[in-house]
Amino acid sequence: MADNKPIQPPTGTRDLYPIEAARRRFITEAWRRASINHGFEEVDGPTFEFTELYTKKSGEGIVSEIFGVFSGKDEQGVKALGEKLARGVDAPAPYALRPEFTPTLARMYAAKAASLPKPTKWFTAGPFFRAERPQRGRLREFLQWNCDVIGLALPEKPTPDDVARATAQADAEVIAACVGLLRELGLTSKDVRVKFGHRGLLVNFLAQCVSPFTSADAVVALLDRRPKISDAVFAAEAKQLAFEWEKFDSLVLSYKIHHVFSSVAEVEVAKGVELTSIESYAIQFGEAVRTAGLTNWVELDFSIVRGLAYYTGMVFEVIVDGERAVAGGGRYDNLIELFGGPSTPAVGFGMGDVVLSLVLQDKGLMPSDAELMQISGESPDVFVISNGTPEADAALPAVLADLRRGTRESRGRDSLHARRTNKTTKNVGKLLQEAEKSGAHFAAIVESAGEVTLKNLRTREQDQARTPIASLKAEVLKRLSRVDA
Amino acid sequence: MADNKPIQPPTGTRDLYPIEAARRRFITEAWRRASINHGFEEVDGPTFEFTELYTKKSGEGIVSEIFGVFSGKDEQGVKALGEKLARGVDAPAPYALRPEFTPTLARMYAAKAASLPKPTKWFTAGPFFRAERPQRGRLREFLQWNCDVIGLALPEKPTPDDVARATAQADAEVIAACVGLLRELGLTSKDVRVKFGHRGLLVNFLAQCVSPFTSADAVVALLDRRPKISDAVFAAEAKQLAFEWEKFDSLVLSYKIHHVFSSVAEVEVAKGVELTSIESYAIQFGEAVRTAGLTNWVELDFSIVRGLAYYTGMVFEVIVDGERAVAGGGRYDNLIELFGGPSTPAVGFGMGDVVLSLVLQDKGLMPSDAELMQISGESPDVFVISNGTPEADAALPAVLADLRRGTRESRGRDSLHARRTNKTTKNVGKLLQEAEKSGAHFAAIVESAGEVTLKNLRTREQDQARTPIASLKAEVLKRLSRVDA
Repeated sequence: MADNKPIQPPTGTRDLYPIEAARRRFITEAWRRASINHGFEEVDGPTFEFTELYTKKSGEGIVSEIFGVFSGKDEQGVKALGEKLARGVDAPAPYALRPEFTPTLARMYAAKAASLPKPTKWFTAGPFFRAERPQRGRLREFLQWNCDVIGLALPEKPTPDDVARATAQADAEVIAACVGLLRELGLTSKDVRVKFGHRGLLVNFLAQCVSPFTSADAVVALLDRRPKISDAVFAAEAKQLAFEWEKFDSLVLSYKIHHVFSSVAEVEVAKGVELTSIESYAIQFGEAVRTAGLTNWVELDFSIVRGLAYYTGMVFEVIVDGERAVAGGGRYDNLIELFGGPSTPAVGFGMGDVVLSLVLQDKGLMPSDAELMQISGESPDVFVISNGTPEADAALPAVLADLRRGTRESRGRDSLHARRTNKTTKNVGKLLQEAEKSGAHFAAIVESAGEVTLKNLRTREQDQARTPIASLKAEVLKRLSRVDA
Repeated sequence: MADNKPIQPPTGTRDLYPIEAARRRFITEAWRRASINHGFEEVDGPTFEFTELYTKKSGEGIVSEIFGVFSGKDEQGVKALGEKLARGVDAPAPYALRPEFTPTLARMYAAKAASLPKPTKWFTAGPFFRAERPQRGRLREFLQWNCDVIGLALPEKPTPDDVARATAQADAEVIAACVGLLRELGLTSKDVRVKFGHRGLLVNFLAQCVSPFTSADAVVALLDRRPKISDAVFAAEAKQLAFEWEKFDSLVLSYKIHHVFSSVAEVEVAKGVELTSIESYAIQFGEAVRTAGLTNWVELDFSIVRGLAYYTGMVFEVIVDGERAVAGGGRYDNLIELFGGPSTPAVGFGMGDVVLSLVLQDKGLMPSDAELMQISGESPDVFVISNGTPEADAALPAVLADLRRGTRESRGRDSLHARRTNKTTKNVGKLLQEAEKSGAHFAAIVESAGEVTLKNLRTREQDQARTPIASLKAEVLKRLSRVDA
């Protein structure tokens, strides 16, 4: 029929057939495990939010980067929207598909701030949407993992030092979760650089290299242009600004997390110089990075900036092989307040699934299809085969149903993944081949109305004695160590 | 600031704080386990699709029941959409938030039909959207679980009997997955009725009770009106249609799955009467329901109809306590073809999370908050405490980091959920209380730079001898049986 032409999925979205769904599960489960093991709790919000939630954080410009959403039920609203849209793209739809999680998180935290612990550590992982032209590494629907630490653990009357320490610890904690994930997936500090910047620290460095120091703006602008101009031009302009760039370079280059900072601090403190809060922070951050075992992963890079209007402290990007950004984030101390909550410091990051998957595939770290099916539990526990007699044929469906049956008491641990053939052949040899191909752990050959032969397809051991059908399930659960102690 | 007023989530959507997220996870994991153990493989599609995908299946009327979606990037498209919308609600946006999964499934199956096995068994679970006024049991964003069996396992030259058997088996298979889930969650056949109807079977019954039989339509219309009219009026109208309603009632009432049908069949076959394909189907369906152990759950109810334009065979609804529909589905043999694939029989069902959650809560079957955190893995494995000495304080962060560290080789099984306090107290007794409150399995009290005391908070056993920090992780993994054999 001419009418029945195939419909495609929208550009930039994905159809996940079983193997792609297993790959997605592999990633989301790794995200989940890394989050939980680092003490983050799962939260989630709506897939679409009021458009205002995003314009409030990012300005009206975001409207042309998101998908507008409206209810087809709301006749009046649809008409009014139509009239607005006809006038131009900046008339927003009432709702938008979420392009990021942070505004939802800020809204949720603000609504319950008084009853939430300090710090509150939340993670989420789900679909997000961007209205852009799809390209390699960027889709219009993608998954994103977010970890955020909101609020600080502080004593009742905190000193500036207490604040610096708690801030540094929270900053290091989100980086630790991110690196923890990458390490578990098989990446090493040779593959990955966590590059961090810090506007306050940059200003502190510049104050030591520009005299008299009034504002960092002109020097920052020059540093931004540096990669595009010649060394001579750069040096000449630096001189005009009284910017001792050689001293600056040596400060940056010599910045080894912890060591330099603690030695700098020791010298300063010995001289009777009081550390600035930013210097305290830098020392504490270095210390937190070191005790978390991340020294080899993290480095200072002032070219990491990421949206000055939004971030208020440390910012970072996670770069693989010097070019692929797999994650990014930083400190945003003003957002909770913007969404109606109490002033609350916060830090977090986001990691998408698209670049991460490409990295894992290119490095051979994505498990094989067979491994994926096993990891995701989609390999059968038992493949049930009839020996071909009418008696066994008749007994098979009930054997299958019994293996699958789960109880509430065991929380489903006594429910087994059991399969049978869909083929009409009665050849036991062929059926055993099919069982092996399915990745099944055991084959159970029904021999009569009362007995099966059990075969471990992974060790290739076959029981010499037959197993009564009545005890088959208990036997398999025992061999899979799935019975509770 | 007046500007920073709180923004609410859109009506009919949900914010999931940790405990609500754990409840969602409890349900989606149960769905997943039931699906996989019954041999279904996971698939998924985009969150939004071309609107055409839904109007093609359900007609233009669906537009007022779905959320329209458009790209804010596409200036031209936005203008054109605006002009169309200004004219009335039936001008659809290019995309729609998915209100159901079946059209996506049909599109995906049609695109790869030639390379997919027969049958293909797919499940999915994710967010779906309906533009309707929210009410108890219905939200605008909800989760839905779908299981479908597409295609039939048939021998090369199938007889009508082969087709009837394979169809009945597939129909029973999706019901078995659905009941398997409900049973595992603690519901029994006393709580749940799987009521099925079948247009073909109804016509077959009517043909035995209306003479001469030409069309079922007038009788079906009368049966539909039956609950609203008096017995006398019903009987009078039945008489006019030559409809022997008492015989019909006794056929329906006496329909006990399998038994009646096989005895009916025996009688007919003994009389030399050839069974119709619908009679063969009914016998096979009864047999499949019986061998799957579902006899007590399933009953015939011709009032179950569910959209005659779409369903082509058996339809069913799963009713809890006689009133709450938790799932529904049926056979739709024309849909794959409608989406450009080869003519392929299919059967499936959908179950939402909203009514299911209400049922579990009302029946006391939703686990407690503490159980949920344990099930979802959000209870810590180890809570690490310093004994308060500077030496132990300094050693603690590295202990924590080491416990959390996972490797690719173990697929993260060697990564532990480890926490520490965020409080400033150094009182070990108080910290042990906090550890217990967190639901942690073990507390590890750091005693020095090299040793910890390990305490099992579930059994309250405390090790008499200290454990070297270097072997702490291996020891905990061993006690949690998390080391691979």
